[in-house]
Amino acid sequence: MAATIVEKIFSSHCGREIRAGDVVMAPVDAAMIHDITGPLAIRVLRDMGGERVFDPRKIVMLFDHQIPADSIPAAENHVFMREFAREQGIHNYDMREGVCHQVVMEKGHAAPGEIVVGTDSHTCTYGAGGAFATGIGSTDMGFVLKFGALYFRVPESILVEANGRFDRRVGAKDLILNIAGDIGADGATYQALEFVGDTFRTMDMAGRMTCANMAIEMGAKAGIVPPDETTWEYIAPRRAMQPFALASDPDAVYAEYRQYDVADLAPQIAVPHNVDNVVDVGEVAGTKVDQVFIGSCTNGRFEDLAEAAEVLGKEQFAESVRVIVIPASRDEYLKSLKAGLIERFVEAGALFEAPCCGPCMGGAFGLLAPGEVSLSTSNRNFKGRQGSTAASVYLCSPATAAASAIYGEITDPREV
Amino acid sequence: MAATIVEKIFSSHCGREIRAGDVVMAPVDAAMIHDITGPLAIRVLRDMGGERVFDPRKIVMLFDHQIPADSIPAAENHVFMREFAREQGIHNYDMREGVCHQVVMEKGHAAPGEIVVGTDSHTCTYGAGGAFATGIGSTDMGFVLKFGALYFRVPESILVEANGRFDRRVGAKDLILNIAGDIGADGATYQALEFVGDTFRTMDMAGRMTCANMAIEMGAKAGIVPPDETTWEYIAPRRAMQPFALASDPDAVYAEYRQYDVADLAPQIAVPHNVDNVVDVGEVAGTKVDQVFIGSCTNGRFEDLAEAAEVLGKEQFAESVRVIVIPASRDEYLKSLKAGLIERFVEAGALFEAPCCGPCMGGAFGLLAPGEVSLSTSNRNFKGRQGSTAASVYLCSPATAAASAIYGEITDPREV
Repeated sequence: MAATIVEKIFSSHCGREIRAGDVVMAPVDAAMIHDITGPLAIRVLRDMGGERVFDPRKIVMLFDHQIPADSIPAAENHVFMREFAREQGIHNYDMREGVCHQVVMEKGHAAPGEIVVGTDSHTCTYGAGGAFATGIGSTDMGFVLKFGALYFRVPESILVEANGRFDRRVGAKDLILNIAGDIGADGATYQALEFVGDTFRTMDMAGRMTCANMAIEMGAKAGIVPPDETTWEYIAPRRAMQPFALASDPDAVYAEYRQYDVADLAPQIAVPHNVDNVVDVGEVAGTKVDQVFIGSCTNGRFEDLAEAAEVLGKEQFAESVRVIVIPASRDEYLKSLKAGLIERFVEAGALFEAPCCGPCMGGAFGLLAPGEVSLSTSNRNFKGRQGSTAASVYLCSPATAAASAIYGEITDPREV
Repeated sequence: MAATIVEKIFSSHCGREIRAGDVVMAPVDAAMIHDITGPLAIRVLRDMGGERVFDPRKIVMLFDHQIPADSIPAAENHVFMREFAREQGIHNYDMREGVCHQVVMEKGHAAPGEIVVGTDSHTCTYGAGGAFATGIGSTDMGFVLKFGALYFRVPESILVEANGRFDRRVGAKDLILNIAGDIGADGATYQALEFVGDTFRTMDMAGRMTCANMAIEMGAKAGIVPPDETTWEYIAPRRAMQPFALASDPDAVYAEYRQYDVADLAPQIAVPHNVDNVVDVGEVAGTKVDQVFIGSCTNGRFEDLAEAAEVLGKEQFAESVRVIVIPASRDEYLKSLKAGLIERFVEAGALFEAPCCGPCMGGAFGLLAPGEVSLSTSNRNFKGRQGSTAASVYLCSPATAAASAIYGEITDPREV
């Protein structure tokens, strides 16, 4: 019987034919916890009487949200997690390596056909690597830590096909914002988005991660790009795995089918205060901007920073704008450094920070005052997400962010 | 009548012979306010009915303590100060340039023979450039903003003479810690420290800034290095000034005279919880360290980072230590970048952050959990200064910090 890629992944994990709608107990290949949600999960494990985790090698631990510790309780959480890691023999990336989702991918903790869970909503990022990856709550993670498995209701899939070539300075972020605008913030609730078509096939891993990352912004359980040569090239230096075929069958059943031609796509922007409130950048061009953030698990990769730097060219950022650039990991940091991007950003007036979630998290880093406007390459623009509830957050691509930072107002990057 | 350099500076500003103990109203050449203390000073100005500042060109404004904004009130303070700067025609360095004291020096806002005040206790740093510079409260600054002058009781001076050459990996920070240990935290209260002798004459500006910076840690109103060729070389590209002679008369009257021979000086460390609690590093060698901070207005210059990098060599930082490196300004950042220091620190496992006060400030950046130990190149190790009151902060040189970060415990840098 024909199956979607998601159904196939669950079938292989459960050892029998699984279909969307089935409720199954499936083993997970990896489980990620970070500094905010990890302590809760560990306490749940303790409350269940869990002495040992199911397999320390399958647990990925790191700190990215509150680093360096922004409060004494945050520092205490870090200590608590370090002690747990030592006790259980879990490797702890601590705060050295970067943002959880980037590190999971970079270090090869997610691979095609795997099931990966994490206590962070943007765990769906790993779908870029052909995994079924989804964010779970800390209570569920307590169970996973103990048993290495979790109940899932296997999601139906929405097939999202994109074809065509992007215009200059238009790319993956614009496409996924456009899709989010169409589908809506709850249009894919508990479903999986399967990304196919020429546009995705020719998209680099960075772009695929941007798209898969934002699946949750439509309510989706997961976003997945079927593995292809690009995927396996990415996996090769990270995992001792032989490439294998994994794709939906041609006659698989989908809940919905959506088609995009990206050739005419203009740069997109999500205006306050919802991610699906998406318009062409031109429609809000000229809006004054106080802060620009280039980074996050959505757009903090070398390719994103290079895109922003290309738009920046030899310009300076407007004095009226504070520009914060944060690579998503140490690897991305070093790649950016060696390519001269850090020098260019800092010379142009940006603050270039060590890898962390930064202003996306809205805790103690780059907060906005009432009335201020932030342009952000991250994934959420909810009221108060980056500080005051009376501030406004717009979401866009690195190219749009850089163009706007030069002029101090929202700017179509094609016009720079 | 013979006079100290401090008496001479006040005499030239008041147009008559001034002696220690005199209470004078003296004009200031520059006044610095930052994001924490600036808003208070501005409100005092307003309360006095001050419409305009005395001279916008003499006011230095920047944000360094809470950047990027670590809370909504911090963001509101920034907005408040930006509006004040716009209204008064004050140039605002905002959060682009770095830590106040470094920026004041780099941008030429303090020069030999000048009187400079700032609403930060480490304003005494500018004494490295031959200025009389002192920290004042925000109320006094409100008065300065309006009148461009302030009442001073002219301090007596303590002559601190140091001769000899430092041992390998021993330097300015070790000397000033040693002096602080001798003089004590209140041993120079309301006095000026005048730094003379071969050791200071051959010391670079970075080292002089480290020493002058810590004058306040002995209660001193100011620390000053009489201007010499090194000073004027530093000033030349920053100010259109002709070098002039400025030094104490040979028979000037001092409150005290202290002499040091640095040849035998071992690396020094201030142990918890007071700056004057100073011992040889060897005495506490082996103490486990959780966090190492290299930066601040005391030791965040290129020379400091280069010293740390020299000790680091091709080693890695211990996995058990979180290492935070923060240059004191954008200029120091770019110098460090171009010299390959950033790459080396990040490859070795450090977080390299954009210029700011960082953990020194102890607000929302790099806080410590109870029981944790921090080694810091900054200037204060008071209980709770970097987080929990049950944490411990040790103060040392960049060389000692780097050596200790490699081994995860306090280490004499000469033994690496």
